Amino acid sequence: MPDASFFPRGDGLTVSDIVALTGAELGASTAPGIRLTGIGPLDRAGPEDLSFFDSPRYATQLPETRAGCVVVARKHVALVPKGLPHLVAANASVVFAAVGRRLFPAALVPAAVSAGVGVSPRAEVDPTAQIEEDVTIEAFAVVGRGVKIGRGTIVSHGAVIAAGCMIGRDCRIGAQVVVSNALLGNRVILHPGVKIGQDGFGYVPGRAGLDKVVQIGRVIIQDDVEIGANATIDRGAIRDTVIGEGTKIDNQVQIGHNVAVGRHSVIVAQVGISGSTTVGDGVMIGGQTGVNGHVTIGDGAQLAALSGVAGDVPKGARWGGIPARPVREWLREVRFLTDLAKKGRSPRNERDD
Amino acid sequence: MPDASFFPRGDGLTVSDIVALTGAELGASTAPGIRLTGIGPLDRAGPEDLSFFDSPRYATQLPETRAGCVVVARKHVALVPKGLPHLVAANASVVFAAVGRRLFPAALVPAAVSAGVGVSPRAEVDPTAQIEEDVTIEAFAVVGRGVKIGRGTIVSHGAVIAAGCMIGRDCRIGAQVVVSNALLGNRVILHPGVKIGQDGFGYVPGRAGLDKVVQIGRVIIQDDVEIGANATIDRGAIRDTVIGEGTKIDNQVQIGHNVAVGRHSVIVAQVGISGSTTVGDGVMIGGQTGVNGHVTIGDGAQLAALSGVAGDVPKGARWGGIPARPVREWLREVRFLTDLAKKGRSPRNERDD
Amino acid sequence: MPDASFFPRGDGLTVSDIVALTGAELGASTAPGIRLTGIGPLDRAGPEDLSFFDSPRYATQLPETRAGCVVVARKHVALVPKGLPHLVAANASVVFAAVGRRLFPAALVPAAVSAGVGVSPRAEVDPTAQIEEDVTIEAFAVVGRGVKIGRGTIVSHGAVIAAGCMIGRDCRIGAQVVVSNALLGNRVILHPGVKIGQDGFGYVPGRAGLDKVVQIGRVIIQDDVEIGANATIDRGAIRDTVIGEGTKIDNQVQIGHNVAVGRHSVIVAQVGISGSTTVGDGVMIGGQTGVNGHVTIGDGAQLAALSGVAGDVPKGARWGGIPARPVREWLREVRFLTDLAKKGRSPRNERDD
Repeated sequence: MPDASFFPRGDGLTVSDIVALTGAELGASTAPGIRLTGIGPLDRAGPEDLSFFDSPRYATQLPETRAGCVVVARKHVALVPKGLPHLVAANASVVFAAVGRRLFPAALVPAAVSAGVGVSPRAEVDPTAQIEEDVTIEAFAVVGRGVKIGRGTIVSHGAVIAAGCMIGRDCRIGAQVVVSNALLGNRVILHPGVKIGQDGFGYVPGRAGLDKVVQIGRVIIQDDVEIGANATIDRGAIRDTVIGEGTKIDNQVQIGHNVAVGRHSVIVAQVGISGSTTVGDGVMIGGQTGVNGHVTIGDGAQLAALSGVAGDVPKGARWGGIPARPVREWLREVRFLTDLAKKGRSPRNERDD
Repeated sequence: MPDASFFPRGDGLTVSDIVALTGAELGASTAPGIRLTGIGPLDRAGPEDLSFFDSPRYATQLPETRAGCVVVARKHVALVPKGLPHLVAANASVVFAAVGRRLFPAALVPAAVSAGVGVSPRAEVDPTAQIEEDVTIEAFAVVGRGVKIGRGTIVSHGAVIAAGCMIGRDCRIGAQVVVSNALLGNRVILHPGVKIGQDGFGYVPGRAGLDKVVQIGRVIIQDDVEIGANATIDRGAIRDTVIGEGTKIDNQVQIGHNVAVGRHSVIVAQVGISGSTTVGDGVMIGGQTGVNGHVTIGDGAQLAALSGVAGDVPKGARWGGIPARPVREWLREVRFLTDLAKKGRSPRNERDD
Repeated sequence: MPDASFFPRGDGLTVSDIVALTGAELGASTAPGIRLTGIGPLDRAGPEDLSFFDSPRYATQLPETRAGCVVVARKHVALVPKGLPHLVAANASVVFAAVGRRLFPAALVPAAVSAGVGVSPRAEVDPTAQIEEDVTIEAFAVVGRGVKIGRGTIVSHGAVIAAGCMIGRDCRIGAQVVVSNALLGNRVILHPGVKIGQDGFGYVPGRAGLDKVVQIGRVIIQDDVEIGANATIDRGAIRDTVIGEGTKIDNQVQIGHNVAVGRHSVIVAQVGISGSTTVGDGVMIGGQTGVNGHVTIGDGAQLAALSGVAGDVPKGARWGGIPARPVREWLREVRFLTDLAKKGRSPRNERDD
């Protein structure tokens, strides 16, 4: 296991505990009593660590690993060297992740920076705010008029919750987060620097430049949403901006006004979604992709990293490229052009013939 | 209207007030006394709301809208169902926006988070700073040596104005903003998390790695500029970085050292502009576009989202693609390649024949 | 020189001081006693400023410059007008930068915002933190349990150093920076708004949505690294995220979990590097480039701006495009398609014939 100075080991789990927890099968000649207190990659795991193997790419590491036990994908079980304690599962990553969550509960959600529960005397909390029990508000955090914060939530240093916002239970509001014009559900995690609820970007031509289109909607963040560091989500103009239950948003993502994202979708770092676009449930959007305004991305669609989405994307489609189109077509075109240019049949060449 | 818990309705305007305010024409059989206190999209507006119609795309919503009145683009007036109160204008969005601004003045600029005007005892204000009347400096904000701040400006929680900066009147400096080495005009809005005036990015090869090129210029932000959340603007190296009057910059935009942006330009989210580039007046740059250093983008040019600008862009041009070229050429090439690849005339195929 | 209200002139250097400092050669009929107190571009420099000339693009400015002296690249020395005091060097930029660093030492690293050294009574410093001498911790900064901070370091307003982190000597931790689960070397500069050490982005499918993959690694930032405003670096999952000595990272860069960046590399603004990727030494990555996860970029490789790196990049290669390939191939393909589309030999056209 890598140096875990920030997440120390606890009592650990035995291999048979893991079988019970995850449904993985005990591998050949593997002692059920082996105790594991950590996790690590094959090349760094030690005798007290669980490791995993789900890609032949790392096959050369299997004979050399010092891991106490390895979770192996069923289809690769033939590659396991004799004598290496192992567990077998259809999806090794899922088992490995489940064990990781059990061994390191402190890594599941961001911790309070300062010790102690309660409202720091150095926080600025409006007397009209309604704070449930077991809420932590750290020094230099600000809670505005009429804000409601549910039990178990931590508002970290320097975070600002502006007037009228509602924050559910067991949320983690990271340092330097600013939330305004927004309602958050339960177990929402906002990593440091997230900015939610500021003005959307809307202007019309005016007499002496650009006139603002007022933005009077809200931001609704449903339960179990996680939003990465320095991401920004604008409030709605004349609708609400909505992030659906369980959706995970990575660092530096930008989401415009009136956007509605469905449930359990995944939006990777630096994606930008323009105003009034609808993203379905279970959608995956690769990093740095840009999505046009007023389009619809169907449930279960997958967009490759660095795509540029101009129009609607059908349910379950796999698209990529700029402008985005089915991934197969896009890659075929890329290869086609490469081949063509190599052969050099440009019109100019032909003229030269 | 969507739930407006954050921007409550006031007394509203009558239809005839709107005619007087905007120059819109009263529609057929529309009572001038109808009173409107809110705004909303066709599918959500109620009897006290103004809505608007400027795209046939939403024509099916017209017969079903419950809006008290609808502003209709003149060219679509034939689509208005009998009995629906309406106003007619050349540009429906402009009228709708003007009414929105009048009905919701509190949404025009970000509000102070905390109640009350003045300098919070929990702000850190250097005694040499010159603060005009009616300035609000919220808790945990920092104002450095010799800073000058004009009347009516709000410096929000956690914002830092470093030594020697000048901030004009009626500005809004959002929470967690950092401003250094900068002069700001009047009515400048910096949304939360904006960082202005840090070191530009310049290095030369040195004996033991990279040596810094010192950055001794400033950032000049002219009147009526608005800058989105978590955007970054570096100070100049041996010139100033300048953002011209009335220019609007969206969230997470990055502007490098020595860049000069003209007046009334619009720069959409996540755009990056490299050092020493000049952007003209009235330019529109679509989201996620990247602009090379040391190039000039002419007045009135429009760049499609996700473009990559390698060289100068002429005045009034519409460019797109990577590398950017006239939009028509770019789209023609995209379609051309698609067609060609579909037909499958790759050199490889030809060899196979 | 541009207005230098933020970086005032000092006593300056004579031309002969510069010769001694940099090894530049005295130009024809140039007085070694000329004293220079500032730096500036040819069109703005005055009699007390050093300027530089290394591109024929600005040749028309040479006869008109008012600069006290100009550093000229040797290959362009024939363009210098008679009577213009000048210095000659193989690399004019390197000489110019060396003089700039000597004349404006205050611009080398970010300054403390507030006057005075020491721990502000308004900072929140855990009693278990170990703070060496000559450390400045400004108001509203937070230093957590067991943190160690080395001599000469400045922790600016609102910065948060979470429990257990180690910060080396002479570091600059900018305002609103958040550091957790991290170890920093000496002379590290983090510009305002940088977020280091938050959760990487990892999920596996679960019963009721997405389950988290715990991230128990650290972030290691080696000596002399500089990281731009609002950049984000996630901590490792089961390895560490590492930024090697002397590497320079620009604003709004995103670096995922387990990424290892080598020494003296340069990563320009808004680049995104996905998890578990390895970047070598002396690599240059142009702005807005996206790099896939689990790939290796060899030492000395150069990636054009706006590239999309899908697979490994060889040592010393120059790649660009989406997906990235050798720059020459990429540009040839771009030109080839342009030519082809102009000639209009689309399959559709051929059918029409």
